[in-house]
Amino acid sequence: MFNVAIVGYGNLGRGVKSAIERNADMKLTAVFTRRPEAVKKDIKDVPIFPGVQSSLPKSLRIDVAILCGGSKEDTPVQGPQFIEKFNTVDSFDTHADIPRYFKKMDAIAKANGNVSVISAGWDPGIFSLERVLGDAFLPESKGYTFWGPGVSQGHSDAARKVKGVNDARQYTIPIESALKQVREGKIKDFTKREMHKRVVYIVAAKGADRERIRKEIVEMPNYYADYNTEVHFITAEEMKKSHAAYPHGGFVLTSGVTGKNHREILEYRCELKSNPEFTGSVLVACARAAYRLKKNGASGAFTMLDIPAALLSSHTSAELRKGFM
Amino acid sequence: MFNVAIVGYGNLGRGVKSAIERNADMKLTAVFTRRPEAVKKDIKDVPIFPGVQSSLPKSLRIDVAILCGGSKEDTPVQGPQFIEKFNTVDSFDTHADIPRYFKKMDAIAKANGNVSVISAGWDPGIFSLERVLGDAFLPESKGYTFWGPGVSQGHSDAARKVKGVNDARQYTIPIESALKQVREGKIKDFTKREMHKRVVYIVAAKGADRERIRKEIVEMPNYYADYNTEVHFITAEEMKKSHAAYPHGGFVLTSGVTGKNHREILEYRCELKSNPEFTGSVLVACARAAYRLKKNGASGAFTMLDIPAALLSSHTSAELRKGFM
Repeated sequence: MFNVAIVGYGNLGRGVKSAIERNADMKLTAVFTRRPEAVKKDIKDVPIFPGVQSSLPKSLRIDVAILCGGSKEDTPVQGPQFIEKFNTVDSFDTHADIPRYFKKMDAIAKANGNVSVISAGWDPGIFSLERVLGDAFLPESKGYTFWGPGVSQGHSDAARKVKGVNDARQYTIPIESALKQVREGKIKDFTKREMHKRVVYIVAAKGADRERIRKEIVEMPNYYADYNTEVHFITAEEMKKSHAAYPHGGFVLTSGVTGKNHREILEYRCELKSNPEFTGSVLVACARAAYRLKKNGASGAFTMLDIPAALLSSHTSAELRKGFM
Repeated sequence: MFNVAIVGYGNLGRGVKSAIERNADMKLTAVFTRRPEAVKKDIKDVPIFPGVQSSLPKSLRIDVAILCGGSKEDTPVQGPQFIEKFNTVDSFDTHADIPRYFKKMDAIAKANGNVSVISAGWDPGIFSLERVLGDAFLPESKGYTFWGPGVSQGHSDAARKVKGVNDARQYTIPIESALKQVREGKIKDFTKREMHKRVVYIVAAKGADRERIRKEIVEMPNYYADYNTEVHFITAEEMKKSHAAYPHGGFVLTSGVTGKNHREILEYRCELKSNPEFTGSVLVACARAAYRLKKNGASGAFTMLDIPAALLSSHTSAELRKGFM
């Protein structure tokens, strides 16, 4: 049995809490949050702290702290703070900054004899793993990642910033015909537009100019301009009723050749009804691995690429060889 | 650059040879075979030996020996022989015997300071990995493995033993409606018959009683009796023309719940035009891992569950963090 702390109690933090409850070998022993009073209403039986700098009770044992804040503002600050005291797991997902963040966490983790698993979850995380496995098993192959159908928080937020928008929800949709071509063994460099489309549901302010809103969204650089985007205006009631969940998912495909000309296709797919709960579930499996790595004498930063599957599992290696091989 | 030996030069051995040629960091330096004269016609530039007991030249360097014989007769004998002298990789696939074989190889490998990766390939191997990952990420989930469409060597051999059968090829076909139910989140204990059917192509001896052959095949215990089996009689020419390849593949599905009642589905699929070539490609990636594990000071037996993805890859960890996360 090992002890877990949750750092940041939003959607992902709640997902981690619920995942801990499904795993008999771990226990929630602390929550860190900027709004302790609000969280205390939700969580009665676990001590709640405003930050790692506060004086923590001597009796408090935390084996792994799972960082559940945002990758932009929170994790780059909280990671270096928490790894000084505890093993950590985070889902840092700013892909381009992963090498730099890894380096930083690796140094502090090593200096403090702790283990940090960074950028865990499904992408980065499981999808990274599948991209690497595909490339290892099929050298010179081509890998494709499709996302969705699912809600993208970043794109929803971007649409929400348009003037006259009260609420927005963006669904990323993989384009079936592109998926089909990859599955059929066609090798192609797709444009962004050929791989995904975007569907946005908007609750507009009363009297707002809908055509202007639509235009501003579909022409927004980086987020929308490179895709075909549909904008639908709905009521606040409809938003609450039909778009409250956070489904997501996606596909990692690897298409390669063996021998003279034998096409081999590997495909990983996940279909998630709750993105934050599933991500939470992956993070707690990584917390188990972090706890074991530390116990085995390791320190430093790790990604899911550095962790053998057996370390993520609640079963012993002997059980896995008997039941899962 | 590390040096690889192939032990056993049948379909899988040829697949391994072709995979080595696609990986710039490894080189074939020896072949062990019971029929050296025949193999010498195929391979001119690599020394060929009848067995590991023969006196090997002092200059011969072998970092990893890949065992490509059969799991029933060859690997249980060759594994313990080769692991005394070299690191090894094998595709031992008698699932029920894996724990015992692991134990044996682990002891000899440790005694000799070598690394043995056992039961590598796609099943056991990648599929084992995906079963364990699915269970780790979704505790209390249910896993399903479907095989095919593809040629099963064991079932083809069994049909070939029926009196009056000159040649046989058996295709294992996953049943679409069962796959569909799992994908839709239905949890069910399928019978064997509900998950797979078997289609057999037979070249019968002249004058043989086809109805008796059909009956003997479809009623054969273990191999066919538990499945719906179709038997088709074809000519030797048709067999050669349409059934010379070894396609295979399959699906690993994990269906679980997070939170209160959110169904999460993970699916891994491979579609292989050449089973032995793809298996060979997986084995050489595992040979890379064996070589690195040994270099890092490890010894003993490993399965793919014990090997981090980064060790299988031809890229450095820094390259992987930059390009694949």
